[in-house]
Amino acid sequence: MTRAPRTVGDVGEKWIVENLIVPIAGSPRAGLGVGDDAAELPLSDSKSVLVSSDKIPEDLLALQFGLMSAYEHGRYLAMVNISDIAAMGGVPLGLLATLALPNEFELAYLEDFLRGFAAACEEHECYLIGGDTGWASVPVLSATAVGWIETGTSLTRAGARPGDRVCVTGELGGFGAALRYFAADPKFRTLDTDDELELRKHLTLPSAQVQLGRMLHQTGSCTSCQDITDGLGQTLTELSRASRVRMNIEADRIPIRSVATRVAHALGLDPIDIAFGIGLELQLAVTLSPDAGLIDHLTEIGEVTDGSGLILTESGEVRPVPEGWQHFRRSALQQVRADIARRPA
Amino acid sequence: MTRAPRTVGDVGEKWIVENLIVPIAGSPRAGLGVGDDAAELPLSDSKSVLVSSDKIPEDLLALQFGLMSAYEHGRYLAMVNISDIAAMGGVPLGLLATLALPNEFELAYLEDFLRGFAAACEEHECYLIGGDTGWASVPVLSATAVGWIETGTSLTRAGARPGDRVCVTGELGGFGAALRYFAADPKFRTLDTDDELELRKHLTLPSAQVQLGRMLHQTGSCTSCQDITDGLGQTLTELSRASRVRMNIEADRIPIRSVATRVAHALGLDPIDIAFGIGLELQLAVTLSPDAGLIDHLTEIGEVTDGSGLILTESGEVRPVPEGWQHFRRSALQQVRADIARRPA
Repeated sequence: MTRAPRTVGDVGEKWIVENLIVPIAGSPRAGLGVGDDAAELPLSDSKSVLVSSDKIPEDLLALQFGLMSAYEHGRYLAMVNISDIAAMGGVPLGLLATLALPNEFELAYLEDFLRGFAAACEEHECYLIGGDTGWASVPVLSATAVGWIETGTSLTRAGARPGDRVCVTGELGGFGAALRYFAADPKFRTLDTDDELELRKHLTLPSAQVQLGRMLHQTGSCTSCQDITDGLGQTLTELSRASRVRMNIEADRIPIRSVATRVAHALGLDPIDIAFGIGLELQLAVTLSPDAGLIDHLTEIGEVTDGSGLILTESGEVRPVPEGWQHFRRSALQQVRADIARRPA
Repeated sequence: MTRAPRTVGDVGEKWIVENLIVPIAGSPRAGLGVGDDAAELPLSDSKSVLVSSDKIPEDLLALQFGLMSAYEHGRYLAMVNISDIAAMGGVPLGLLATLALPNEFELAYLEDFLRGFAAACEEHECYLIGGDTGWASVPVLSATAVGWIETGTSLTRAGARPGDRVCVTGELGGFGAALRYFAADPKFRTLDTDDELELRKHLTLPSAQVQLGRMLHQTGSCTSCQDITDGLGQTLTELSRASRVRMNIEADRIPIRSVATRVAHALGLDPIDIAFGIGLELQLAVTLSPDAGLIDHLTEIGEVTDGSGLILTESGEVRPVPEGWQHFRRSALQQVRADIARRPA
């Protein structure tokens, strides 16, 4: 960049948060705040409010691909917000929907969208409790999740310590594989119908890990936690930075969905790149203290040491860490296409 | 309308809330919700969370007129959200900012915007605690306010009872007068510089009535409350509908700002129409039980009776109630221009 940064596109989302939002945010009274998945606001010595806002990108790829129904769209907005409460180890209580819509927005679409939103709430025993509906020249759909947690016990990003084990919930790469598969030239889309249906499901029906987040919180052994919404690489980088530690990750131990491996094969990509790169899993990346017992649904993928940054090794060799995703630098579609183009000729 | 309603523009904001949001919202667990300025979520027998989201219209008239600075723009977004906590009688704790921005959005503007946002928070002893920043093709700026209140004691819209007194805080018409003045043909803009500066201030620097809202809550005599964000007429109509009562308002008792009276004179309008019509005051419209003592900063403008609807009388004669404002039906500028056009030839 030769000229001085002048627009948000010049600097990117993370720069804005670190340089413009963090310096004016928070206070001792506000508890935890910017930098975690949700803010914790103490209401008493025993209970705190958790609150977080997330919007759906206007250029969401599942919509661009024509693969997401209105119902799934609404469910998705609720789920990414509920997931922020899950990542803190909290209990969701309610959601607000802020819907900015142009006049020509279809009522039937809105109705299905809201049914999907309400279904996600019901699935996690919380409720649509309000919001704001108003005009905008393009649809911008955002929500706020409210939950509660025992005061001072939120799972933050900053608690990882040397000696901790790095773990993830579930299997990864389903969402990222779907993004790359549906963005690829049709001649490479050689998977069978069942696989394509599964990919579509990973792309459009993510599920927040509320029960797992709560269970991890109750163990008392979870030292840091974040939901995987911008790729595993970005998530682990943010955890290691917030905790001021190094994370040594072993590529061979990452639980990759078998369909992601088949997509990698069809497109000539590396499954690890798919799991590390752009993709919203709503699984949790966590660190556990060394004395933690075995926990179901978790896979250990590495360890925390002194130092900084993320080191990815495969069969003993260090390999580059694939890039995650942030707003403003380039569009998600540009990044997915760049990822696909990196395939061997 | 001859064809079946098909888009959000066909039905309007209030229809959407009543027919699509309310039926899927709320629950016994969720406490109060859709329909009030904020939702109350009980965390314990003593303390509840208040939460509310509001966005700034993309076509905000103060911006269209070129009268609002970036700092004022950010302060405004925070204030309209803090006002929702004030209208429930609660104490604000923190705000989240959800900023959807195009790549070419100016960094310098964003910085001033956030300074204004933080200044409003500081003014009310709460804090920016998080949010979401991401790309959109046009700027859509929304926020969420979080506060607390003693469980079960929120000032709602539904508690007005026959015999109650209808009151408002402060003086009204400043914002509405500014809208009409700056939208008018320059040949009618004959007020002096001091008046024009005052109008600009009413338009761009509204202040949430947190202390008054809290004080009204503490009296135990306030039976319903709402902040005036869509005009006094719209606000009183919503209070009377939610409470299933009639409100008899005496035009002569409405506290009108003197500058609004001068604008009315310059434009050939009625000051009552200005106070009743489109305009965001952030003052509070409330009902008080008959036994309530005198309360500073409040003006009694009428009384609650059995029945329904809003009856406006002037010198004993019933007069029509000027229209308020809702999204999707027409733009704010269209409505302001229609209001001005209603002036006698």
